[in-house]
Amino acid sequence: MRKVAIIGIGQTPVDEHWDKSLRDLAGEALIAALQDANRETIDGLFIGNMLSGIVNRQENLGSLIADWVGLHGVEAFKVEAACGSGAAALRVALMAVSSGEMDSAIALGVEKMTDTKGADTTAALATAADADYEAAMGLSFVAINALVMQRYLYEYGWKHTDFAQFSINAHANAVHNPCARLQEAITEKEYRKARMVAEPINLLDASPIGDGAAAVLVIPAEHLRPNGRGRPVITIAGSASATDTLAVHDRPDPLWLAAAERSVQRAYAQAGLGPGEIDLFELHDAFSIMSALSLEACGFAERGQGPRLALDGEIALNGRIPITTRGGLKARGHPVGATGIYQIVEVVQQLRGEAGGTQVDGARIGMAQNIGGSGATIVTHILTAT
Amino acid sequence: MRKVAIIGIGQTPVDEHWDKSLRDLAGEALIAALQDANRETIDGLFIGNMLSGIVNRQENLGSLIADWVGLHGVEAFKVEAACGSGAAALRVALMAVSSGEMDSAIALGVEKMTDTKGADTTAALATAADADYEAAMGLSFVAINALVMQRYLYEYGWKHTDFAQFSINAHANAVHNPCARLQEAITEKEYRKARMVAEPINLLDASPIGDGAAAVLVIPAEHLRPNGRGRPVITIAGSASATDTLAVHDRPDPLWLAAAERSVQRAYAQAGLGPGEIDLFELHDAFSIMSALSLEACGFAERGQGPRLALDGEIALNGRIPITTRGGLKARGHPVGATGIYQIVEVVQQLRGEAGGTQVDGARIGMAQNIGGSGATIVTHILTAT
Repeated sequence: MRKVAIIGIGQTPVDEHWDKSLRDLAGEALIAALQDANRETIDGLFIGNMLSGIVNRQENLGSLIADWVGLHGVEAFKVEAACGSGAAALRVALMAVSSGEMDSAIALGVEKMTDTKGADTTAALATAADADYEAAMGLSFVAINALVMQRYLYEYGWKHTDFAQFSINAHANAVHNPCARLQEAITEKEYRKARMVAEPINLLDASPIGDGAAAVLVIPAEHLRPNGRGRPVITIAGSASATDTLAVHDRPDPLWLAAAERSVQRAYAQAGLGPGEIDLFELHDAFSIMSALSLEACGFAERGQGPRLALDGEIALNGRIPITTRGGLKARGHPVGATGIYQIVEVVQQLRGEAGGTQVDGARIGMAQNIGGSGATIVTHILTAT
Repeated sequence: MRKVAIIGIGQTPVDEHWDKSLRDLAGEALIAALQDANRETIDGLFIGNMLSGIVNRQENLGSLIADWVGLHGVEAFKVEAACGSGAAALRVALMAVSSGEMDSAIALGVEKMTDTKGADTTAALATAADADYEAAMGLSFVAINALVMQRYLYEYGWKHTDFAQFSINAHANAVHNPCARLQEAITEKEYRKARMVAEPINLLDASPIGDGAAAVLVIPAEHLRPNGRGRPVITIAGSASATDTLAVHDRPDPLWLAAAERSVQRAYAQAGLGPGEIDLFELHDAFSIMSALSLEACGFAERGQGPRLALDGEIALNGRIPITTRGGLKARGHPVGATGIYQIVEVVQQLRGEAGGTQVDGARIGMAQNIGGSGATIVTHILTAT
């Protein structure tokens, strides 16, 4: 199995892109990744996307996007794992290159989701949950997470405001990310007074959706040539994915992300690393409760103690485990099927020292974790710079 | 890169399954493949499906199906390439195993598409074409194929009835396939008198949709153990995929399947074989015109001469290149995202000598070709028995 390196990244701003179609956004990010890698073509294209069928009435994105950007004839498919689609596409690109099937591939995440009405978007997002046993009962996706958070507060005795720092930290970092959807800081007072969405989740616990695309170009590490730009070599040291029950009520403990634990343990083992060696962690903060659960499942906090890291400032850029360093889902935005690739792009920025105002000093090892459904499909990547 | 073998197959009948959900069908085929391979679990699950988001309001099929069949925690994603989704999922399973990322995987195709109204199905299927430049103009998927067939008749001077044998052959074979949707023979007179759908495509040129699931279990060939059942070893000797423009009007020649040619040439080269050595060919006869175009692009007929093979009986079980030996899309049925895996299951049946009344004598090398969109995404597999 060949080791795989990331040599190109590209992204569009996350926003409501009224003047750009899905193919426009995908093309921008893809061409940016090619240019960043100083390449003109690739052997394969794997597209993380969740909602193109329902929202854009467009499937067959592989052919659509390969054709649009002039990559005539390349192998190209869509990979779907709800909000985990982006990192799932990277898994496929990695296997394509590590197997020797191809010598270069792009994993692209793209979502164009603001062209529809809010209620339709909510219904579309509910397809990430169990259609027969959750969505059919009227549970929206935010409602599922609200039930989880409610239970978490009850079980471990935290108050809602103990989660404020997750959102404050994400927004503070997004100020320095020109691709972030919400480039504005928030205060604890604003967090406390934010409009309720689904008790106890308020507007500032929840990530905004958006349109956007991001891309990473991978090749076998053995093909690396000096890039003449003084950049470090970014290698995928760990990559693993696992599933849990789709419906949250089927889990022995709804407050434990078993698939996160399973995938991160495999990724740690592959990389020969543990949580103490991770310099930054782009986690899947679709809701603030998910930040706490992810930190616990990945070994950064004891069970039920995730909020403690936020309260103690350990998630800040100079803390023990900086998270959402470019704004996270909360403030960079959550174009669902694209999010997993945005996370990878952001980890690469950190490892290259290109994270500007939110650079984590001396970052050499970064982790990203992308989640589809309420913990149902979880993909973890560990990247290292040498 | 490790060679990959197919050691298990499973399928449900293609039908209108009013009493079974998507997960029921998927589970039946998957468990049948496990049992056929005499295994209890696998490392990964890759699901070919096109329409679950639009028609079943269910994404995240990886977690849904892994959970449903008790494959707790395994890596599982959906792979989508319109009607080519099934074979695309097999491509991913193959790369997962050949890379060494995992030691076993199932490629599952599933589609549950008859729970919706006919007009909605037509609109859903149009998402395989270009939403902005084809579907938005009112072109349904059958209409696109009708334009292609019209042009073919004009360009090469064939009559509509010259295509009759493609459908007659498929139906004759389906009589012997208990999983086929239409297990009944048709006559040339019935073909000629069939109701028009979109000039010149009539009802007996077109494949019926349906509900169904099929699965194949792959492992590294180096892990093969004697199975004690006297079965031949089925190896994937060639596997390749390519794309063309999504919209047919963007192609220099709308009557040439460039992506089929590209993918089949790569598969031939991998297998060290040519068209003269293929014992049977499960092609993508969504419409009778597609049979002719596929035979030409894959080197079995000169350009514009596909119908000649049908008229001369060369596509029959004892002909030069038997096609649609278990009924094809035309009579086995076309549960779109599942079709590519049905084709693989059928080739394995032939190579094992388990094809009953439609067994091709001495079949040792079989090919399957699955198409997403009107020739936009094309995946070719060559299997060999030793």
